[in-house]
Amino acid sequence: MSKNIANYRDFVGAKADKFHKATLFQGENLMIGLNCLEPGQVQHVHEHAGQDKFYFVLEGVGLFTVGEEVTEVGPGHVVWAAASMLHGVENRGTERLTILMGIAPPPK
Amino acid sequence: MSKNIANYRDFVGAKADKFHKATLFQGENLMIGLNCLEPGQVQHVHEHAGQDKFYFVLEGVGLFTVGEEVTEVGPGHVVWAAASMLHGVENRGTERLTILMGIAPPPK
Repeated sequence: MSKNIANYRDFVGAKADKFHKATLFQGENLMIGLNCLEPGQVQHVHEHAGQDKFYFVLEGVGLFTVGEEVTEVGPGHVVWAAASMLHGVENRGTERLTILMGIAPPPK
Repeated sequence: MSKNIANYRDFVGAKADKFHKATLFQGENLMIGLNCLEPGQVQHVHEHAGQDKFYFVLEGVGLFTVGEEVTEVGPGHVVWAAASMLHGVENRGTERLTILMGIAPPPK
């Protein structure tokens, strides 16, 4: 078992009441995690002052909000929310939405 | 055309003399880019003082070095190099190796 290598599939999960989150790696400057949204689940629009964030869609389709922009994208897309930009995501699809995400600097 | 959303496939490329690099997004705290290594190409082992880095394998197989660890992994794996850890990657496979990567804080 490597402490520097992770298969995202080992971190996938689901919760009934709220979307699932897992931390893969956390350093001084960056956190890498996984978010899984079941159909109908939402990460409400929010912002991180002083933190840049990306989402990378692994599976499923997400309706992403970044600033004024609202766009539905699937696997292979990177969504970028620079520090202080409003952002959020909603799963309006029929399958689980699985996202690799990172925040720099990481949450305290 | 969105300025906050990118499909990694639009950034894939190849160079004969050296592996291909593209920047997808760069903020104050984080840079997200793409690295493409043709069979036989190498990113030599190096380190970034004060910068955390991740690689995420999108396509192909890479032989990754992180610290003392040398491991070959394919799509779906995250490779983590915390600040000051030696890291590098080599494509010993027969197809292109495509990696999403991020560095925090970004290169100057």
